[in-house]
Amino acid sequence: MNSSEALLPAAAHPFDEAIQLRRDDIQPDLFYGGTSAAYGNMVGPFGGITAAVLLQAVMQHPQRIGEPLSLTVNFAAPVADGEFQIIARAVRTNRSTQHWSIEMQQQGETVTLATALFATRRETWSATEASFPLLQDQPANQTAAMPVHRLPAWVQRYDIQVIRGMPGFMAPEQPPSGDSVSMQWIRDEPRRALDFCSLTAICDAFFPRVFVRRREHVPAGTVSMTIYFHADSVMLAAHGVQELLGYARASRFYNNYFDQSAEIWTPSGNLLATTTQVVYFKQ
Amino acid sequence: MNSSEALLPAAAHPFDEAIQLRRDDIQPDLFYGGTSAAYGNMVGPFGGITAAVLLQAVMQHPQRIGEPLSLTVNFAAPVADGEFQIIARAVRTNRSTQHWSIEMQQQGETVTLATALFATRRETWSATEASFPLLQDQPANQTAAMPVHRLPAWVQRYDIQVIRGMPGFMAPEQPPSGDSVSMQWIRDEPRRALDFCSLTAICDAFFPRVFVRRREHVPAGTVSMTIYFHADSVMLAAHGVQELLGYARASRFYNNYFDQSAEIWTPSGNLLATTTQVVYFKQ
Repeated sequence: MNSSEALLPAAAHPFDEAIQLRRDDIQPDLFYGGTSAAYGNMVGPFGGITAAVLLQAVMQHPQRIGEPLSLTVNFAAPVADGEFQIIARAVRTNRSTQHWSIEMQQQGETVTLATALFATRRETWSATEASFPLLQDQPANQTAAMPVHRLPAWVQRYDIQVIRGMPGFMAPEQPPSGDSVSMQWIRDEPRRALDFCSLTAICDAFFPRVFVRRREHVPAGTVSMTIYFHADSVMLAAHGVQELLGYARASRFYNNYFDQSAEIWTPSGNLLATTTQVVYFKQ
Repeated sequence: MNSSEALLPAAAHPFDEAIQLRRDDIQPDLFYGGTSAAYGNMVGPFGGITAAVLLQAVMQHPQRIGEPLSLTVNFAAPVADGEFQIIARAVRTNRSTQHWSIEMQQQGETVTLATALFATRRETWSATEASFPLLQDQPANQTAAMPVHRLPAWVQRYDIQVIRGMPGFMAPEQPPSGDSVSMQWIRDEPRRALDFCSLTAICDAFFPRVFVRRREHVPAGTVSMTIYFHADSVMLAAHGVQELLGYARASRFYNNYFDQSAEIWTPSGNLLATTTQVVYFKQ
């Protein structure tokens, strides 16, 4: 067993440290936390860890009912390294759904603005209609490890094996695919049992599509991200510490913004989440 | 020229009546409006018109900068027929982006909770990567008009010509496709020049994917919808009153909820919007 195979106790995993919150004694909707250098990006924290800690506030809120169904995070301003407050408010609670408004603030200013929908599910007819991307693409053993040299800290918190669509400037020897599609195996490094918060962060752990399409590094940053969860906590627990398959593509690049659509699958073909984001880029 | 070809002056079009708002004299973020029977659904208003009027509040807000880039609408509770208030608040204004929080309230309770992102764009390298769906599917002349008999009022506010994926119970003679994909031509009826608000409503004007996949009518309703706009007002104005091509599919149906991803195209292959939603269904 080498070090990357070691499974740390949850409390000691850098992901758990990064999403740790303290609830205010008097105001039930108020939580205190701080950014983690382990998940640092070029400037401030990785967007995926910010999304995860916003979800975590609702997960820990005593008024919560059900499990996450959707989450939209608007990155309104750069999050500065340091302390933050989260205000998570149950705006409307119905019989089987609950609508949340969540804000991250620093120095009294809103830096991130989110909404979440939680729901209790009952068993119904179910079906997966999206195609498992591995079946229609390269075999799984032709992968390239994402190089971490000179990349932000958060990239080292994952083991990413790229099957297709490595950002061109990281792999100049690979022929261009002509599109922005990426497919990658991804898991927490070190391994950690999957839950809704870590799945949320993994939804944002794709490199900007423009890096893949243009094969060059240009300024880019997510401005809004939406996740739909297609699984419950029992399915996530059953997945455990295995790799996930991520598949991402863009529909359109137009005047400073492009979209990204992505799917997160288990190796056995369970679709756990679909996610979209709109990303700023500068040519 | 028959009546369906008549182009009403904007002020007289039922869509403009339905999204009409009055701004409060004292509180700059507060708007007053009311539901329109012309866009009624089975219970309360069509979700697309609710999304449109929320966007309209920001469009008419004097603090607005730029044009819509993304919109997420959470349908927190049924909207009752009658009056409503909208509170549209610019949470954060940056150099080229502006983040909005928008709530619709009735009797002091939040019924719809939305966020929007507005932006000013500069010209950059641009490219459409999604495939124009008509090229990979049936020819455009094999269409069937959506029957409006016994359907809610809002359906009659559109001319919908279904190319593929008519809900099975409306066309029992058509062979099942085995999937939930729909493709349709759609325009306002009577015709109306396209703008961001009408494009927003059209993003929600697909029948629930479960109707197509299961070929039967089951209780279903959108709980959250996100739209990414890939066009500016000049492109929408250039499109004018022509039909739009809508293409929708589902990724997964799982225990009471499924997702829908859709694209809205001009006939000449301009991708104007991509949109996703998560929808409740009961078997």
